[in-house]
Amino acid sequence: MQIVVGSILSIEELALVHETLVRATFEDGRATAGFAARLVKDNRQAVNDRKIEMVRKLVEERILGNELFRMAVRPKQLTPVMFSRYEPGMHYGSHVDDALMQGMRTDVSFTLFLSEPETYDGGDLVIESASGEDTVKLAAGSLVAYPSTALHHVAQVRQGERLAAVGWARSFVRDPAQREMLFDLDTARRQMFAREGKSAEYDLVSKSLANLMRMWVED
Amino acid sequence: MQIVVGSILSIEELALVHETLVRATFEDGRATAGFAARLVKDNRQAVNDRKIEMVRKLVEERILGNELFRMAVRPKQLTPVMFSRYEPGMHYGSHVDDALMQGMRTDVSFTLFLSEPETYDGGDLVIESASGEDTVKLAAGSLVAYPSTALHHVAQVRQGERLAAVGWARSFVRDPAQREMLFDLDTARRQMFAREGKSAEYDLVSKSLANLMRMWVED
Amino acid sequence: MQIVVGSILSIEELALVHETLVRATFEDGRATAGFAARLVKDNRQAVNDRKIEMVRKLVEERILGNELFRMAVRPKQLTPVMFSRYEPGMHYGSHVDDALMQGMRTDVSFTLFLSEPETYDGGDLVIESASGEDTVKLAAGSLVAYPSTALHHVAQVRQGERLAAVGWARSFVRDPAQREMLFDLDTARRQMFAREGKSAEYDLVSKSLANLMRMWVED
Amino acid sequence: MQIVVGSILSIEELALVHETLVRATFEDGRATAGFAARLVKDNRQAVNDRKIEMVRKLVEERILGNELFRMAVRPKQLTPVMFSRYEPGMHYGSHVDDALMQGMRTDVSFTLFLSEPETYDGGDLVIESASGEDTVKLAAGSLVAYPSTALHHVAQVRQGERLAAVGWARSFVRDPAQREMLFDLDTARRQMFAREGKSAEYDLVSKSLANLMRMWVED
Amino acid sequence: MQIVVGSILSIEELALVHETLVRATFEDGRATAGFAARLVKDNRQAVNDRKIEMVRKLVEERILGNELFRMAVRPKQLTPVMFSRYEPGMHYGSHVDDALMQGMRTDVSFTLFLSEPETYDGGDLVIESASGEDTVKLAAGSLVAYPSTALHHVAQVRQGERLAAVGWARSFVRDPAQREMLFDLDTARRQMFAREGKSAEYDLVSKSLANLMRMWVED
Amino acid sequence: MQIVVGSILSIEELALVHETLVRATFEDGRATAGFAARLVKDNRQAVNDRKIEMVRKLVEERILGNELFRMAVRPKQLTPVMFSRYEPGMHYGSHVDDALMQGMRTDVSFTLFLSEPETYDGGDLVIESASGEDTVKLAAGSLVAYPSTALHHVAQVRQGERLAAVGWARSFVRDPAQREMLFDLDTARRQMFAREGKSAEYDLVSKSLANLMRMWVED
Repeated sequence: MQIVVGSILSIEELALVHETLVRATFEDGRATAGFAARLVKDNRQAVNDRKIEMVRKLVEERILGNELFRMAVRPKQLTPVMFSRYEPGMHYGSHVDDALMQGMRTDVSFTLFLSEPETYDGGDLVIESASGEDTVKLAAGSLVAYPSTALHHVAQVRQGERLAAVGWARSFVRDPAQREMLFDLDTARRQMFAREGKSAEYDLVSKSLANLMRMWVED
Repeated sequence: MQIVVGSILSIEELALVHETLVRATFEDGRATAGFAARLVKDNRQAVNDRKIEMVRKLVEERILGNELFRMAVRPKQLTPVMFSRYEPGMHYGSHVDDALMQGMRTDVSFTLFLSEPETYDGGDLVIESASGEDTVKLAAGSLVAYPSTALHHVAQVRQGERLAAVGWARSFVRDPAQREMLFDLDTARRQMFAREGKSAEYDLVSKSLANLMRMWVED
Repeated sequence: MQIVVGSILSIEELALVHETLVRATFEDGRATAGFAARLVKDNRQAVNDRKIEMVRKLVEERILGNELFRMAVRPKQLTPVMFSRYEPGMHYGSHVDDALMQGMRTDVSFTLFLSEPETYDGGDLVIESASGEDTVKLAAGSLVAYPSTALHHVAQVRQGERLAAVGWARSFVRDPAQREMLFDLDTARRQMFAREGKSAEYDLVSKSLANLMRMWVED
Repeated sequence: MQIVVGSILSIEELALVHETLVRATFEDGRATAGFAARLVKDNRQAVNDRKIEMVRKLVEERILGNELFRMAVRPKQLTPVMFSRYEPGMHYGSHVDDALMQGMRTDVSFTLFLSEPETYDGGDLVIESASGEDTVKLAAGSLVAYPSTALHHVAQVRQGERLAAVGWARSFVRDPAQREMLFDLDTARRQMFAREGKSAEYDLVSKSLANLMRMWVED
Repeated sequence: MQIVVGSILSIEELALVHETLVRATFEDGRATAGFAARLVKDNRQAVNDRKIEMVRKLVEERILGNELFRMAVRPKQLTPVMFSRYEPGMHYGSHVDDALMQGMRTDVSFTLFLSEPETYDGGDLVIESASGEDTVKLAAGSLVAYPSTALHHVAQVRQGERLAAVGWARSFVRDPAQREMLFDLDTARRQMFAREGKSAEYDLVSKSLANLMRMWVED
Repeated sequence: MQIVVGSILSIEELALVHETLVRATFEDGRATAGFAARLVKDNRQAVNDRKIEMVRKLVEERILGNELFRMAVRPKQLTPVMFSRYEPGMHYGSHVDDALMQGMRTDVSFTLFLSEPETYDGGDLVIESASGEDTVKLAAGSLVAYPSTALHHVAQVRQGERLAAVGWARSFVRDPAQREMLFDLDTARRQMFAREGKSAEYDLVSKSLANLMRMWVED
C-alpha cells in the first residue's frame, strides 16, 4: 500500500530545514551503502551530526505525529532520517533496501520531498513493480510511503537540486496487505462512528479491527 | 465459536426421521470408536444402510442449507451424519473427537437433537473448557455446533430415550477465531446493506471480508 | 503481481471465437452477480451452453498452456471462463470479486481482451489501489492477470462493442508476494542455466525455489 | 482460555491495598478511554501517583509471581495495573479492549477483585461470546484472566462499592488456543514427573513442549 | 525426520517383485527428469505398463499399510512408485526433487531397496545436509523415508545391479518439524496407554495431539 | 542446519582463556539446571564473576563477529556464554534446552571447544535425531552451532579434562529451514557478485533474499 501524505511540514518548518541544510556537511552517499548498492548510488548525504540534529528530530516528530501516516503505516519505530541531495547528473540506480538496518526490520520506506518540483528537472522517485513503474514527484513538505519490498530508483537530476529526507519505518504490522485491510476497516468504522455513533455495526467492525490487530501485531 | 441453530428440521421432517429410525438397525457405538474412546463410549448407533439413507441425506441437506449454519461454520463438506440412541444408563465419557475422519479434517462438531427434552432425563451434551462446562439440551430439530477442539461428553440418560444426529464439518476456515471474525464482519455488512445500500463503508467492509477469506480459506 | 501476457490466441483462433460469439445467446450479466454487485453491473454475458463450449475450452487451454501465465500465476484450476459484451452505455462499477466461486478460492482474476482497442471507446479495465488507478486496455488476444484482492471496474463503453473473456484462477500459491518471489527466482535460475548450465549457484537457487514451493504450495 | 486464580493477595496485603486506596485520588474513568469506550464507561479510577505506587507494584509482583497465572498466561510484561471503583449506579458497557496500549500488545485481560462479593450488589464482570455470557464475581484477592479478544462489560453496581485492579498482559504466546495447549502439556508432564520421574514418555512430552514454545514464542 | 522402516515386503513378495521386474520394460531414466536433473541422471526405469501394474500396487499398499510409515509420514497420497535399476557405472547426481508432481506436493521422498546390499558395490543413497552426508544402504525389502527438501544423490554402482522402488508422499502435515512432534507425542501417548490406560495425563496428551493436528493438517 | 566454524579464537586468545579459567571459580553445573535436567547433568561451570568477565566478553565478540556464524545463525542476541569443565567420569545426559532463558528465545545452541581433542577421551557432543546420532568433537577454538530443538548429550569424559564454552543465540529467523534457505541464497548471490558483478540475476536473487527476510525476520 503506497500513500501520499501532504503537508507533513509547514512552510516555516520547511524554511528552517532548508536553512539548516545549507550549513550541514554533506558526504558521498556511498558511505552508507552496501557492497552492491554502492555501484549504483550517486548522491550526497548530510552527515548526521549536531548541526542537523534539531531538524532531524523535528522531521521525525512531524512524520510520526501525522495521523494519516500512522493509520497507513502503523509505525513502531523509525530509523534516523537521512537528508540527501542530488546535484545535476546524480541519480540512484535500481535497488531494494536492506531488510535489517541496525537490527530494525524495514517494512516501509518513505521520501519526504524538500525541494519544490519546479526547481529541478528529473529526480523522480520511481517505484517499480511487475505491473509497471510508478513515478512520484511531490510538493516540498509532502511525503510518499511505500512497502520496502519494492525495487525503486531515483532518476537522474538533469538541472537544479533535489533535497529530500528519506527513512524507514518498522511497522507493528509486517504484511502490506494486512496493513491495507486495517486501514480500510479503520476508515470505515470512523466514518460509521461520525455518522451513527456507537451502533451495533460500529461495535462489530471495531471488535474485528482490534482482534485482527491482536492476530497480526508484532510489538 | 459455539452456536445454536433452531428448527433445522420441520415437524414433518422430524416425524419422518423418527419413523425411519424405529425401523433402523442399531449396533453398539464402540464399533466406530478408537482404542481409547471405546473405554468411555456407551451408546447405540444406527447402521448406515439403505434403510436410513434417505433421512440421512435429508438431514445433511437441511444442515448444509441453513444460512446461519453456513455463515458460522463455512462448511466445505460434512461426514455422513450418524444417528445415535442413548437408553437409560447409557452415556459417552469425556473425549476429543479425532482430527481426521476418512481423510477429512474435523473442524466443527455438531449435534442435532431429535428427542424432545422433556421426554428424557439426563443426556445433556456437556462442552468442557478451562472456563467451565457448558451444558446443552435443545428442542427436537435444533442443532448446536462447536469447535471440534473441545473436550466434551454426553451425560448419562437416567430415564427415557435420547435420539440425536451427530456429525462433523470440514470448514473452509480452520481457526475458530477467524470464523468468528468473518461471522461478525458478514453480519455487520448485511445490516449496513439493509439500512443504507451499497455505501462507501459497506464497500470497505465487503472488500475486507472478501480479502480476509482469500487469506484464510482452504478449499 | 499484475502481468500482461500477449498473444494468448492466434489470429485464427480469435476469428473462431468471434464467429462463435455472434451466434451465442447473451443474457443480462446480473444473473451471475451477488446481491451488491448486481447494483453496479451492467453488461451482457454469453449463456454457457453447447454453442460456446468448444471455444470456451479452447480459450481455457490456451491460457493454461501459456508459459508466462503459468510462471506468474501458478494455476491449479480455472473457473469456466465467461464471455462478456459491453454495448454503448454499459459498464461494471467498482467491486471486489467473491473469494469463493463454486467452492474454489479465487486468487487471480484475468481478462482476455477480444475486441481490438480501436474498435470501441471507453471500456478500460481499471484496477484500483491505494497508490492510484491502473488503466488497462489491450490488443485483442492479449490478457491481463491481477490479484483478485484488488477493487476494479470496467469503465463505460461510449461507442462500439467490447468483447472479453473473464475468469479466475485458483493458484497453488495463495499470497501475491510469494508468487512474485517464485517468479523472480525462477526467472533468475532459467537465465543462469541458459548461460552457465548446472552451476553451483544454479543448484542453490533451484533448491531454494523447490523448497519455497514446498513451504507455500497448497495442492 | 479463561482461568480463575485464587488468593493472589493475602489478607494482610488486601488490607494494605484497601488502606491505600482510601487515601488515593480517584478521577473519572473516561480519562483513559478511547473515543467510543468513553460513551459506555462510567466508573472512577485511582490516579497513578506516588500515593498508590507501592501497592500497585505489590499487586503486579503478586500476579507475576503466581505460578498458575504464569503457566496459563505466559506473561512477558504487564501494563501498570489500574484501580477502579464502581459506586452505586456505575457500570462499564460492552467493549473490546484496545489491541495496543503504550506500544504493548494486549493478549490477556485480568481483573483482581478487591471487594468481598457480599459487600456490593451487581458489578459482575460479564464475558460475552457467541455461546453466551459468562458471569464472574470472585472473592476479594482472587483474579480472573481471559483473552482480550472477548467483548465484556461490568454490570451496574446497585448497592455498595466494587473495588478492583484491572490490567493487561503481553503474553509470550499470542494465540489463546496455543496457550491452552502449552498449559495442558505442561500440566501432564509435571504430573508424570511427580509420579515416575524422568521417564521416556516424560522426555518426549518435555521435548515437544520446549519445541512448541520455540515455534510459538514471541520474545 | 528421516526414518528407516524394515520389512515392508515379505520374502515372497520380494521374490514376486523380482520376477516381475525381470520381464518389465526398462527405459532411460532421463525420460521423467526435468531439464536440469537430466544432466545428472543416469539410470534405467521400468515403463509403467500393465506388466508391472500388479506389483506396483502391491508395493504401494504395503508402504501405506505400514504403521511406522503412517505415524512418521502421515501420508495423504503417494505418487505411483517407480522401479529403477542401476547397472555398473550408473549413478544419479545431486539434486532436489520437484515440489509438484502431477499437481501433488511432494513432502517426503522414499526409497525401498529391492536388491540385497551384498549383491552390488556402491549405489548408496546419500542424503546431504549442512551437517554432512548421511549414507543409506538397506536390506532388500527395507525402506528409508526423508524430507523431500534434502539434496541427495545415488552413488555410482561399481559392480552388480541395484534395484529399488522410489516414490513420494503428500503428507497431511507439511513441515518436517511438525511431523516429528506429532510422532513424539503419539509415541508417548501409546506407551502411556499401554502402561496406565486412559489416565488424566493420557487424556491431556491425546487432546493436545488431536488439536495440533487440527492446527496443522492440510487434507 | 548444523554448522562447524573453525578458528573462532586465535592461539593467543585461546591461551588467554585457559589462563583465566585456571583461576576461575567452578561450581556444580546443577546450579543452573531445571528440575529434570538436574537429574542428568554432571559437570562443573565457572561462576560468572569479575574474574572471567573479560574473556567471556572476548569470546562473545569473536562469535558474533564471525561472518560464517552470522550468515548461518542470523543472531540477534546471545545469552552470556558459560564455561563448563568435565572431569573424568562426568557427563551430561540427554536433554532439550529450555525454550526461554531470561526472557530470550533460544533458537540456536553452540559449543566452542576449548580443549584439544587429543587431551581427553570421550566428551563428545552427541546431537540426536530420528535419523541417528551426530558425534562432534572439534579442535580447540572451533565451534559447532545447531538448532536448539535437538535432543543432545555430552558423552562421559573417560580421561583428561574437557573445557568448553556453551551458549545460545536468539536468531532473527526462528525456523531452521528458513535460516538454511537464506544461507543458500546469500551464498549464491555472493558468488554471483564475485564472478559477474551486479547482473540482472544477481539483482533478482538479492531482491528475493531481502524480501524473504522481510517476511521472516523477528527483530
